[in-house]
Amino acid sequence: MGTGFFGDIKKVKYEGPDSTNPLAFRHYNKDEVVLGKRMEDHLRFAVAYWHTFTWPGGDPFGGQTFLRPWFQDTMEAAKLKADVAFEFFTLLGSPYYCFHDADVRPEGKNFAENTRNLNEIVDYFAEKQAETGVKLLWGTANLFSNRRFMSGAATNPDPDVFAFSAATVKTCMDATHKLGGENYVLWGGREGYETLLNTDLKRELDQMGRFLNLVVEYKHKIGFKGTILIEPKPQEPTKHQYDYDVATVYGFLKKNGLENEVKVNIEQGHAILAGHSFEHELALANALGIFGSIDMNRNDYQSGWDTDQFPNNVPEMSLAYYHVLAGGGFKTGGTNFDAKLRRQSLDPEDLIIGHIGGMDCCARGLKAAAKMIEDKALSKPLADRYAGWDSAEGQKLLRGEYSLDQIAQWVESKDINPQPKSGKQELLENIVNRYV
Amino acid sequence: MGTGFFGDIKKVKYEGPDSTNPLAFRHYNKDEVVLGKRMEDHLRFAVAYWHTFTWPGGDPFGGQTFLRPWFQDTMEAAKLKADVAFEFFTLLGSPYYCFHDADVRPEGKNFAENTRNLNEIVDYFAEKQAETGVKLLWGTANLFSNRRFMSGAATNPDPDVFAFSAATVKTCMDATHKLGGENYVLWGGREGYETLLNTDLKRELDQMGRFLNLVVEYKHKIGFKGTILIEPKPQEPTKHQYDYDVATVYGFLKKNGLENEVKVNIEQGHAILAGHSFEHELALANALGIFGSIDMNRNDYQSGWDTDQFPNNVPEMSLAYYHVLAGGGFKTGGTNFDAKLRRQSLDPEDLIIGHIGGMDCCARGLKAAAKMIEDKALSKPLADRYAGWDSAEGQKLLRGEYSLDQIAQWVESKDINPQPKSGKQELLENIVNRYV
Amino acid sequence: MGTGFFGDIKKVKYEGPDSTNPLAFRHYNKDEVVLGKRMEDHLRFAVAYWHTFTWPGGDPFGGQTFLRPWFQDTMEAAKLKADVAFEFFTLLGSPYYCFHDADVRPEGKNFAENTRNLNEIVDYFAEKQAETGVKLLWGTANLFSNRRFMSGAATNPDPDVFAFSAATVKTCMDATHKLGGENYVLWGGREGYETLLNTDLKRELDQMGRFLNLVVEYKHKIGFKGTILIEPKPQEPTKHQYDYDVATVYGFLKKNGLENEVKVNIEQGHAILAGHSFEHELALANALGIFGSIDMNRNDYQSGWDTDQFPNNVPEMSLAYYHVLAGGGFKTGGTNFDAKLRRQSLDPEDLIIGHIGGMDCCARGLKAAAKMIEDKALSKPLADRYAGWDSAEGQKLLRGEYSLDQIAQWVESKDINPQPKSGKQELLENIVNRYV
Amino acid sequence: MGTGFFGDIKKVKYEGPDSTNPLAFRHYNKDEVVLGKRMEDHLRFAVAYWHTFTWPGGDPFGGQTFLRPWFQDTMEAAKLKADVAFEFFTLLGSPYYCFHDADVRPEGKNFAENTRNLNEIVDYFAEKQAETGVKLLWGTANLFSNRRFMSGAATNPDPDVFAFSAATVKTCMDATHKLGGENYVLWGGREGYETLLNTDLKRELDQMGRFLNLVVEYKHKIGFKGTILIEPKPQEPTKHQYDYDVATVYGFLKKNGLENEVKVNIEQGHAILAGHSFEHELALANALGIFGSIDMNRNDYQSGWDTDQFPNNVPEMSLAYYHVLAGGGFKTGGTNFDAKLRRQSLDPEDLIIGHIGGMDCCARGLKAAAKMIEDKALSKPLADRYAGWDSAEGQKLLRGEYSLDQIAQWVESKDINPQPKSGKQELLENIVNRYV
Repeated sequence: MGTGFFGDIKKVKYEGPDSTNPLAFRHYNKDEVVLGKRMEDHLRFAVAYWHTFTWPGGDPFGGQTFLRPWFQDTMEAAKLKADVAFEFFTLLGSPYYCFHDADVRPEGKNFAENTRNLNEIVDYFAEKQAETGVKLLWGTANLFSNRRFMSGAATNPDPDVFAFSAATVKTCMDATHKLGGENYVLWGGREGYETLLNTDLKRELDQMGRFLNLVVEYKHKIGFKGTILIEPKPQEPTKHQYDYDVATVYGFLKKNGLENEVKVNIEQGHAILAGHSFEHELALANALGIFGSIDMNRNDYQSGWDTDQFPNNVPEMSLAYYHVLAGGGFKTGGTNFDAKLRRQSLDPEDLIIGHIGGMDCCARGLKAAAKMIEDKALSKPLADRYAGWDSAEGQKLLRGEYSLDQIAQWVESKDINPQPKSGKQELLENIVNRYV
Repeated sequence: MGTGFFGDIKKVKYEGPDSTNPLAFRHYNKDEVVLGKRMEDHLRFAVAYWHTFTWPGGDPFGGQTFLRPWFQDTMEAAKLKADVAFEFFTLLGSPYYCFHDADVRPEGKNFAENTRNLNEIVDYFAEKQAETGVKLLWGTANLFSNRRFMSGAATNPDPDVFAFSAATVKTCMDATHKLGGENYVLWGGREGYETLLNTDLKRELDQMGRFLNLVVEYKHKIGFKGTILIEPKPQEPTKHQYDYDVATVYGFLKKNGLENEVKVNIEQGHAILAGHSFEHELALANALGIFGSIDMNRNDYQSGWDTDQFPNNVPEMSLAYYHVLAGGGFKTGGTNFDAKLRRQSLDPEDLIIGHIGGMDCCARGLKAAAKMIEDKALSKPLADRYAGWDSAEGQKLLRGEYSLDQIAQWVESKDINPQPKSGKQELLENIVNRYV
Repeated sequence: MGTGFFGDIKKVKYEGPDSTNPLAFRHYNKDEVVLGKRMEDHLRFAVAYWHTFTWPGGDPFGGQTFLRPWFQDTMEAAKLKADVAFEFFTLLGSPYYCFHDADVRPEGKNFAENTRNLNEIVDYFAEKQAETGVKLLWGTANLFSNRRFMSGAATNPDPDVFAFSAATVKTCMDATHKLGGENYVLWGGREGYETLLNTDLKRELDQMGRFLNLVVEYKHKIGFKGTILIEPKPQEPTKHQYDYDVATVYGFLKKNGLENEVKVNIEQGHAILAGHSFEHELALANALGIFGSIDMNRNDYQSGWDTDQFPNNVPEMSLAYYHVLAGGGFKTGGTNFDAKLRRQSLDPEDLIIGHIGGMDCCARGLKAAAKMIEDKALSKPLADRYAGWDSAEGQKLLRGEYSLDQIAQWVESKDINPQPKSGKQELLENIVNRYV
Repeated sequence: MGTGFFGDIKKVKYEGPDSTNPLAFRHYNKDEVVLGKRMEDHLRFAVAYWHTFTWPGGDPFGGQTFLRPWFQDTMEAAKLKADVAFEFFTLLGSPYYCFHDADVRPEGKNFAENTRNLNEIVDYFAEKQAETGVKLLWGTANLFSNRRFMSGAATNPDPDVFAFSAATVKTCMDATHKLGGENYVLWGGREGYETLLNTDLKRELDQMGRFLNLVVEYKHKIGFKGTILIEPKPQEPTKHQYDYDVATVYGFLKKNGLENEVKVNIEQGHAILAGHSFEHELALANALGIFGSIDMNRNDYQSGWDTDQFPNNVPEMSLAYYHVLAGGGFKTGGTNFDAKLRRQSLDPEDLIIGHIGGMDCCARGLKAAAKMIEDKALSKPLADRYAGWDSAEGQKLLRGEYSLDQIAQWVESKDINPQPKSGKQELLENIVNRYV
């Protein structure tokens, strides 16, 4: 039975590294235990509803390439799409999925109709979840596609748009809560500007701060236990997006007193666009105590826009999961494939193949990272390098027990003349290459 | 009299826009009053000692091109350099200069000798300042060139380097204070990393926080009334620099409780490297209340490194000064030319010509910006665009008097369906072009 | 009379630099004579049918923002669009326009219907041209939007797509010829690849070479006297586009023996994406003898994709027109505004305002460039700098009259030890700033 | 015996993938046969004299970090450096090395002294080569570091610099020939411009064409059998370098009739700076018939300058060697490590460790690539994708047997309406991941 969309493709199985079956896992073995935990529980994979089921294959220079039977804006089509989606989750063995309101329901003529549509689909999803055991990693509101959001949602010059956006988030938080979602995400695709000439930065940042507070207050009001996550991105579609990167979001949270309430959902492609490596953003979020979840994809290093490709570089993923594990692993977060097929990948099986490749790469990355952690391959040299700071004097220096002039006196009187030591970067890179 | 280095070049005069004299100002007329203040008092130009007097013209693929008689590491050469420098300030009519310790004194064999050398030069500078009336905009410590700083200064894995750095900053703050400097700057050229593999981000950020607190505490202890400034830069020489951009520095200050003690010195070239426009960084610093001063230069948009060229694009500078003026203008800050000649510009007169070009462009930018402000050319449309937020309901929304569910109820019951309004970007761009 | 789309907007007039009328020219005075030629004849402005009349305001994260009455895929709508377009050309005073087949006709169900639709519109355009005096600068075929072209047109792995593309170009060349078009353009938006893994570079380059030869042969067959132009772009939508930049196109033309048959249409935004300045591409095309025409727009320097904004930086445009004029000015080419409104610029008047701003900036750029040429402001120092090569010995060296070992012997025997001379970059930059 | 510089480090051995010895190869097993050839004969590794023995560890913001006993500009130091270098080649088991004149000899006061110094060292090298069996992969002239080249070598506005450069190249070609070098390389580090304002592009390209012809003529005159190679780079140190990328060099060779005389030496870091992937440049050089050799390193994707790091990403190297092998492998070319230690890697052993890591990664890449070729993992799907072009009709189309109008008639009469087929990118990426 089923929709028949995926033809005779069977549930994807783990067949081991030597398999040449394009529809089997070679590395992702969900029950295999790594660092004391099942791989599935480490990686917590989620499928992104938008890329996988709603993206038509368009780009700025060309239209739809994918022909999907559910590409109509009706409730009937939305349910067919849901049927295919849950079939897909099951075939793939993905324990989670993620969605925006606009991915799952037809666009209504106003807020009330949007809400009714969403609620109808939420009920449908609830049944599907119960049937399949698939869970919701996170929900979110699409506050960027409709033309009403063209000048911002929370940061719109028109307070009515702020209100409409807030109302929409309320319905999406309700939906997420009802579906047992483990997180709620905010990505501010239009919270930024096209030109400073028509933008009042201070006002807009204040509006955004208020908006986030509304969300946090409402979370507590309804007893939602999941994590509120902000997803940083530096630009695109806007010239500048306010949630530029992890460091910027941290400053924003601190300014609004929300650094203990909100965490970040970090995307590889967004990290790259902001001029950072993925592992930088992960390590920084750990250092600042705001790591939440990841959007796993890959940006093309030669393209200046968000390419959202399936990840395929194992060494890079190993370093990413190294930092995830080093920070204690996912709590409510997980690995959401915010990745889309290339627009030439027309076949239904390409959807499966893309995800298999991504999941296998993540599994290889996870295993390599786990082994590095077990071996203290990087943590031992790191601890040695900073050992001086663990001395009593180092700790006193760090705690602020000496003033600048006391330090100067000490340097002068002791003729402190520190000699540099090799940073051993190449050695460490070679060590990593033992694992990947 | 004098060193003779600049031959028979005379003090640079304002000759008006029609002058074709390459050694005259065409737009910078220091006593001309703009928005009620003399141009000199608005722009507060400073010459950067390092680029103008110590840079040999090298690049990663070639050595020294400039042949300056003071290019030796002796006290005698340092004094000759100082003689030429103050001649230059006087010829150019620059009211200020800026320096690092390493620019002005010979490198000693240890901290004590460095300090003695610095102090000797500081006395020499004090005399020069008194003679010429030239003032110090800011001083700073070079904690990046010597090999001891290769793995960081405050963020070094070796606490002895932290101590050496702190001691050096103390001497530079003393020097700045003694010379009446109006600001003290920290640029963390090595406060970052080459590879995360050998870097403990959390430790290093903590070290950097402590270091900055030491500086602020010492400022108060010695009664230094100037402003402490951090100069953001995203990378180069490091792969990642902790003071990435204005937003990152803001978060760092908040984390360390220093957002009311420290401001930012924003450089055009650094803004560009971080993926921002210069005016973005200025506007953001205003919005966050941490704007301090600017390093004026220009990066080549096609080069991926810091090119530190003299500014020459008047429309861009007009927008920069627009934000400076919109934020109330410089207080202790100013316009420091952190700009170097191209390495093929060998002639002594090129030093003068480069600065004349930069000063003239700034003057044009300032005048255009001032006129836009007088005409409310941008501020009037901006206020109109956000007028909805000034209504009683808008203000209540912003003050948090409604909860998310109250807002949703209101949107639903009133069927709020906001219609987008034109952002008028092209019109605003055309308006700016009336002024530049 | 008319469509009423532009309300009561009147024909745009030149009102001089002091005008504050947003719907008047301040600098573009078409009959003003510059370097012995009317401004209109120098600049040869064209409006781009696609951006101005068919772009819905979408971007990768949001849909249509513009509501135009002709946004339906019918012949009736196509004619309404044409009516508005020719009204627009007339209101604006643009002497030329440019189009793709897909901009002007409804999409048919197959090639034959596409051709019929195109021909019907061409007849309609012919009448409109006769009525208004507006002319066609160039025509082109859209071989990138329809899903059939997703893997390339000329470079498709399927020869049927090559054939379909060739057939389409034939109809577009016929249309261009019939409408008296002065050039025919090829932009290979899909002639490139998404991944090398599925790409045979050699085959595809051979296919592309054949395709271009077909075009040139057909041009001669039908007696089309216009110029065949290739428009370089490095990437987007593809990861790599074969017509990367001017230098790459030159090599391709040489390889296919077409360097005297085909020229380039250079776009500012594409130059920037390729890592070049606009003036570099212009100067290089002049040096290689393949300069043809320009697509005038502006890319955002902080955005990594093609933003196609209206130009607004006069200093940059002055350098661009300097190279256009230095190469002898346009022959069959012109200044096509391949620029689109920002998607928030919803009002019909924004279309007019965007073009006015662009035309005024080009006019300022042209006048500044003309004055620099009259004054030999740059050409005189340039000639002086290379004067050594004009000596008899320099010319012999260049003509190849000495061999490497003869030169070595001469250097050794004469102890040639050349001393560097200042490149005077800052002086030249200041000189340019006298004009802009 | 020996210099003692490397302490008690022994000749590096292959110990297999499980070795944790940082001074052993884990993958590079020189005698292992891959695709019928020894690994050493495939990879043809060379050590770069400049980075490994002459680079002091400086960067634009800091001076020397490496303390090497030979860092003096004397003949004695040059010989000590040579002693250490050949010890290094032997310890590492590198069959080849590469050098610039300026790397190996002290700088003389004029051309004649430079030549004498070079010749003395060449004799010394000849003995060393005979003793050790190490060979010269290529020689080259440093025409970029000395201030005389600041405005170009071949492209200098002063013909005397052209002559000096030509004479220098003659001596370096003689040296390379004498030492049995297998290639001669030209990298035009200063053959470009800082600003178009002082640059006559046409003149400079003509000068460069003449220069290259001189080199080719001299090669034949002296009977040098090696390959002349141009190394493309887009920029740095210049704003624009004429040998921008492979496509640009191809056009330049065609223009000068040298496309059968000169090939390219492709560097990963330079490819990245030009906006290309490394494999793109390799595949393109193959397609154009000008592939020669590679400079193996890695650029940091987040740094906008040439970082010249040791390669460490095996998937990327696998694709690189895939294209090398697909083009038939190296002829006279090889794998030159144009890679430098990070400036914090101070220890002599770091030199060895960096190269070991690079060689091991190349070996893994080679083996993966060889296996993909044996399995036709990529070539089979590729051939299938383009099969239509191998039909009789496809071939006739490509040979030019049909004109544009014939093709159009055929498309119309047959109602050709090609349907797109999946490009299968994700499947191919997954297939590659079976090998790496």
